[in-house]
Amino acid sequence: MKTHTVGVILNGVTGRMGTNQHLIRSILAIREQGGVKIGPDETIVPEPILVGRNANKLKHLSDTYGVEKYTTNLDEALGDDAYSVYFDALSTQLRVPNVLRAIEAGKHVYCEKPTATNTAEAMSLVTAARKAGVKHGVVQDKLWLPGLLKLKFLLDTGFFGRVLSVRGEFGYFVFDGLSQPAQRPSWNYRQEEGGGIFFDMFSHWRYVIGHLFGEVQRVVALGALHIDRRADEQGKPYDATAEDAAYGIFETVDGLPVQFNSSWCTRVRRDDLLTLHVDGTKGSAVAGLRRCWIQSEAATPKPVWNPDVEPKLDYFADWGEVPNNREYDNAFKAQWELFLQHIVKDTPFEWDLMEGAKGVQLAELGLQSWQQRCWVDVPEME
Amino acid sequence: MKTHTVGVILNGVTGRMGTNQHLIRSILAIREQGGVKIGPDETIVPEPILVGRNANKLKHLSDTYGVEKYTTNLDEALGDDAYSVYFDALSTQLRVPNVLRAIEAGKHVYCEKPTATNTAEAMSLVTAARKAGVKHGVVQDKLWLPGLLKLKFLLDTGFFGRVLSVRGEFGYFVFDGLSQPAQRPSWNYRQEEGGGIFFDMFSHWRYVIGHLFGEVQRVVALGALHIDRRADEQGKPYDATAEDAAYGIFETVDGLPVQFNSSWCTRVRRDDLLTLHVDGTKGSAVAGLRRCWIQSEAATPKPVWNPDVEPKLDYFADWGEVPNNREYDNAFKAQWELFLQHIVKDTPFEWDLMEGAKGVQLAELGLQSWQQRCWVDVPEME
Amino acid sequence: MKTHTVGVILNGVTGRMGTNQHLIRSILAIREQGGVKIGPDETIVPEPILVGRNANKLKHLSDTYGVEKYTTNLDEALGDDAYSVYFDALSTQLRVPNVLRAIEAGKHVYCEKPTATNTAEAMSLVTAARKAGVKHGVVQDKLWLPGLLKLKFLLDTGFFGRVLSVRGEFGYFVFDGLSQPAQRPSWNYRQEEGGGIFFDMFSHWRYVIGHLFGEVQRVVALGALHIDRRADEQGKPYDATAEDAAYGIFETVDGLPVQFNSSWCTRVRRDDLLTLHVDGTKGSAVAGLRRCWIQSEAATPKPVWNPDVEPKLDYFADWGEVPNNREYDNAFKAQWELFLQHIVKDTPFEWDLMEGAKGVQLAELGLQSWQQRCWVDVPEME
Amino acid sequence: MKTHTVGVILNGVTGRMGTNQHLIRSILAIREQGGVKIGPDETIVPEPILVGRNANKLKHLSDTYGVEKYTTNLDEALGDDAYSVYFDALSTQLRVPNVLRAIEAGKHVYCEKPTATNTAEAMSLVTAARKAGVKHGVVQDKLWLPGLLKLKFLLDTGFFGRVLSVRGEFGYFVFDGLSQPAQRPSWNYRQEEGGGIFFDMFSHWRYVIGHLFGEVQRVVALGALHIDRRADEQGKPYDATAEDAAYGIFETVDGLPVQFNSSWCTRVRRDDLLTLHVDGTKGSAVAGLRRCWIQSEAATPKPVWNPDVEPKLDYFADWGEVPNNREYDNAFKAQWELFLQHIVKDTPFEWDLMEGAKGVQLAELGLQSWQQRCWVDVPEME
Repeated sequence: MKTHTVGVILNGVTGRMGTNQHLIRSILAIREQGGVKIGPDETIVPEPILVGRNANKLKHLSDTYGVEKYTTNLDEALGDDAYSVYFDALSTQLRVPNVLRAIEAGKHVYCEKPTATNTAEAMSLVTAARKAGVKHGVVQDKLWLPGLLKLKFLLDTGFFGRVLSVRGEFGYFVFDGLSQPAQRPSWNYRQEEGGGIFFDMFSHWRYVIGHLFGEVQRVVALGALHIDRRADEQGKPYDATAEDAAYGIFETVDGLPVQFNSSWCTRVRRDDLLTLHVDGTKGSAVAGLRRCWIQSEAATPKPVWNPDVEPKLDYFADWGEVPNNREYDNAFKAQWELFLQHIVKDTPFEWDLMEGAKGVQLAELGLQSWQQRCWVDVPEME
Repeated sequence: MKTHTVGVILNGVTGRMGTNQHLIRSILAIREQGGVKIGPDETIVPEPILVGRNANKLKHLSDTYGVEKYTTNLDEALGDDAYSVYFDALSTQLRVPNVLRAIEAGKHVYCEKPTATNTAEAMSLVTAARKAGVKHGVVQDKLWLPGLLKLKFLLDTGFFGRVLSVRGEFGYFVFDGLSQPAQRPSWNYRQEEGGGIFFDMFSHWRYVIGHLFGEVQRVVALGALHIDRRADEQGKPYDATAEDAAYGIFETVDGLPVQFNSSWCTRVRRDDLLTLHVDGTKGSAVAGLRRCWIQSEAATPKPVWNPDVEPKLDYFADWGEVPNNREYDNAFKAQWELFLQHIVKDTPFEWDLMEGAKGVQLAELGLQSWQQRCWVDVPEME
Repeated sequence: MKTHTVGVILNGVTGRMGTNQHLIRSILAIREQGGVKIGPDETIVPEPILVGRNANKLKHLSDTYGVEKYTTNLDEALGDDAYSVYFDALSTQLRVPNVLRAIEAGKHVYCEKPTATNTAEAMSLVTAARKAGVKHGVVQDKLWLPGLLKLKFLLDTGFFGRVLSVRGEFGYFVFDGLSQPAQRPSWNYRQEEGGGIFFDMFSHWRYVIGHLFGEVQRVVALGALHIDRRADEQGKPYDATAEDAAYGIFETVDGLPVQFNSSWCTRVRRDDLLTLHVDGTKGSAVAGLRRCWIQSEAATPKPVWNPDVEPKLDYFADWGEVPNNREYDNAFKAQWELFLQHIVKDTPFEWDLMEGAKGVQLAELGLQSWQQRCWVDVPEME
Repeated sequence: MKTHTVGVILNGVTGRMGTNQHLIRSILAIREQGGVKIGPDETIVPEPILVGRNANKLKHLSDTYGVEKYTTNLDEALGDDAYSVYFDALSTQLRVPNVLRAIEAGKHVYCEKPTATNTAEAMSLVTAARKAGVKHGVVQDKLWLPGLLKLKFLLDTGFFGRVLSVRGEFGYFVFDGLSQPAQRPSWNYRQEEGGGIFFDMFSHWRYVIGHLFGEVQRVVALGALHIDRRADEQGKPYDATAEDAAYGIFETVDGLPVQFNSSWCTRVRRDDLLTLHVDGTKGSAVAGLRRCWIQSEAATPKPVWNPDVEPKLDYFADWGEVPNNREYDNAFKAQWELFLQHIVKDTPFEWDLMEGAKGVQLAELGLQSWQQRCWVDVPEME
């Protein structure tokens, strides 16, 4: 039995996402299952060291989850040859300098999105990583959501015939912290701290659309700062300065319209917190996080518009569902496993810093479209 | 008992909408109920004469529904003092000249939307009617849909707190006529015959938004000709030339974002063929044609994003519904009754030719926005 | 308004099928709806005369349904120029001589299936009709069953991808007349009177398979005389001599396997009295008489074989259904309307005596396959 | 308390069936329950030794399930007097030589089906075992399926009156491995590796039919290679060369028709993955893996063929069900218990190598029938 041990520096892992999705559900879950099995007698086992500024929090994580090593000294970790991978889940504003340090130290890098607060800086990471010849990746977890995997399956097997249009709805009602505690961090609502829904979500939509439907070519978006007074984690009121909703229309290179709403101020009356409705000549689908409903051409009813009587059709009943024919792993873990294989076996890994930069770019262009009230073309980078 | 008899010239009443909605469900239904009761001892009874080009069809209507008078000679009818009102449900391209003739003959006019195929001509009707001093109205039936009346009730009673955003979805899948018979007339899909979803639906959205949420100030829209090969009423294939979907974002004068999709190429997975989702600080609502679902601040759940498990919340179950505390009349009839009262008693009637012209204007601007890929301001008219 | 009156001699119309399906639900129903509309101002109206051996029965039909003309003298009717069409619903053994007489009299002929009791005689009708230059048709009603029309729609729109196999189940339990009254005529169970399920049903399967899936090229069938003692319409016991079940496998010219069971001795536990199960690469369907259930590739579950626990999948629940997007007319009437148009306007009508002969041929070959325990090739005729 | 310990050599137990059905659910389950109780104070306890070629896999099984003994040296095990029984669940192609070695070593033998890849070799096992005077058995698990036990109960208690016909449906949709992972091993679809549905399933149908309805006397079958391109366990595409469906008709010595379809390319719309529909004069039944539905003569409805209206009968609702009046053990374990008693107490055990050879014979004849397009008689063996 051959075991490849990969030392991984986990920086910024004391945050909610870092702890839950990356440490517990990815790195530790992989270790628990005996590593990533890459052959009958070959596995990859990640060996983590936790890095952060708060020694107490680190110790607590270490104790709770039995992770032996941790440090507040990033340089020390970067200088240790036992670690070949640097992972970054810091707040966006800290990402660029820290990832650059890791690249300079010759580490392979993997990081959360958005990779930077503007396209130029995001591209500087690409340039640095390429120059240093290290491997690199960016979290694009939505691609491994079971619902979106089902959608990909439908696309790959020709279910839709020709795809006509896509409509996305993302969001839910984030309480303002005044009447009830908010369920998202307050920095999300402060522009000066890197908040705003454009940076948070358009960096996702870029790869979701690109991967499923083709590259985004053009965008028009209307942002909104719906709720401008909120209370923070300590219950202290503050002025929200970052937009909390974005109503966007994208066009892919093939001219496919993708209308996509993102909002933290909407009450959900649909199948899931994120839904993608795809219409095609031969069938339509609505994908949520895990489930995916379908209606083929053959099952398409003929609705009659008659407001004088109660509708006879139940517009949900005549949809079927893609069954769970396979197990679906945690989306973050699924990507981690691919990244670790990329590191050890040099398998292809397309979700790199350039993809991350494209996400930042779309967020920036979305904001521009809003401020200038115009359609914006998406220029090719490099 | 005082009875006001109002002679009404019904032109273009052999078409589907004219026959069903205006003749049968409005004029004849009003006559059947004994007229519009406007006081304890006072009613208005419309006295119709049917006008059209096909004598056979007119005779058939006359026989079937017991309408005594009909003629193929419009001028004769216009010259008859027994008729003070001219109603027009001709195809859009014939509307302007015929309505103008009626105005010149001194008749009050009432007509279907869109009132013209371009804004200039729509305004010419306004000018003519004002100059002639006749009363005028335009069908804006969506306002009397029970679902939208319920929405108006919610707005009027302050249910929403501050309204944050509106999202509209209209449409269903119109078969292409090749695999199965189409359920809409083929001219809808031919630009050269006045087809296209911008003219058909934006002329509605103008007054719906204006009436419920405030005047539209700006629009961006992306049209699409999704299915460009269809078969007509005789099963003969033709090239569709008019757009069959429009993805739009409106801004009202108060900066309210109203995102609105209109499509004849979408399979319906929502509450109704038309839904309006309104989010406010204090509550949200989703209105369909007849029903209206609500979720107040107090009932708003706190969803948790966890794609690793099946969602625990049913995002439909925690919505309530506005009850049917009143009877809802046919929308067309409701507006006819108001128009007849306007004629006889000079009661206010705000849905006039100017409102109709505004609908035409928005359709035109929507098309312009699509072709030029830009936001378009909505100029004030007059 | 142009009306084409077509005189139709209805022979053998006092039987169950003749009265119900052909007289009442077809000819009279067509008359009631004002004829077959073939243009804006053009219709075909059939004008029937009833022919039979029993004057009393004819008079009763005439009185009950208001059909003025009837006679027991076929030659008289055949000699009357007012009638251009001869229809035959006599028992099979009487069909050939009567249809031949009609052809000799220069009438167009339309008749029930099977057209004869053997292929040679069935072909003699073809030859005679062609020689006389008259038009001809044979009832193939199953093609207009709503369920089979839906199946055709699925085939035409490519729902199945590549069709892999077809399985048909026809039948129900015909009581033996001893314990409870039988629901089919006793001659069906007597070989010497033209009974037997091969002649009754294989004459259907020939055109059903040919029309939907391609020409039958080869057949193997096992007949069975399951219940050999029955009681007739008068409750008198008799020996059944004709087979009451046929288990067959067909191969089309493209090598498609079509396994088809026909039985009057089976208790029904399936969706309908006749079901066709079609499996394709991209989807499967099960059609009944009116409904049609579908499961696309995308909705196909992954069943697990575990007899130790109750099955978790409901193997019916994950099927959708083709909606009733159109009205479905009575199958017999639908074919009558096409035949009348064929007579008057010379529109194409492919279900002619040759098609009828092919049905007889397959019945004959099925019997041969059974008796000789062998596969039998289906020779091309003419 | 008298305990008979029976040493059992389990060869080929690292495969899916060997591990799950024979090791875990049979041998270990029997040990866990304290052995096979054959009298108030007498039990039989099997004592297994695991044999295989992969020491790692054996060790893993040994560790996981606490089976102390295992070896890669079959001869050593065969030479050990502690083991009187040899069990074989190797792939079919390895079966004959290994079972012969065990017989030569004087072991009683028990093995999976099919016992060989052709009848001659299957008979050679019979001859060898008889000559050596050892006891022998072949897995015929379907007989102990709860659904089939219920069917046997109905047959034994005369529920059917005279049995008229049997129709079997087996199968489900095995994914091709290209669009989704296949749920069966790829060798099943390669003729050169002993794949094909004839060998897999006809070896079952032989004993199922023989045991329930009488010996098979004659067979006609049409095989099909529906899907000829698949992907294997590693996702690598390959050409399928073995038939994946078999449409067969059997006749028993009593002339009972048994029509039986077996397919890995069908979407399931029936009560279970395997169903047997039996019609008799006095009643009918449909058996699945565990459940069995019944309709007696008295409950038989009289369906009416009227395609003009929706069917009034629900053809499933008027069936009853055989209750679970007893516990049903795992089918494999049930047969193991009988075999162990046969070994220790010489109780009758009819499912021997001759029965196994008959299964192989029917598979061979089915293939012959398909290739020669003919009925094939089943010759008696010995």
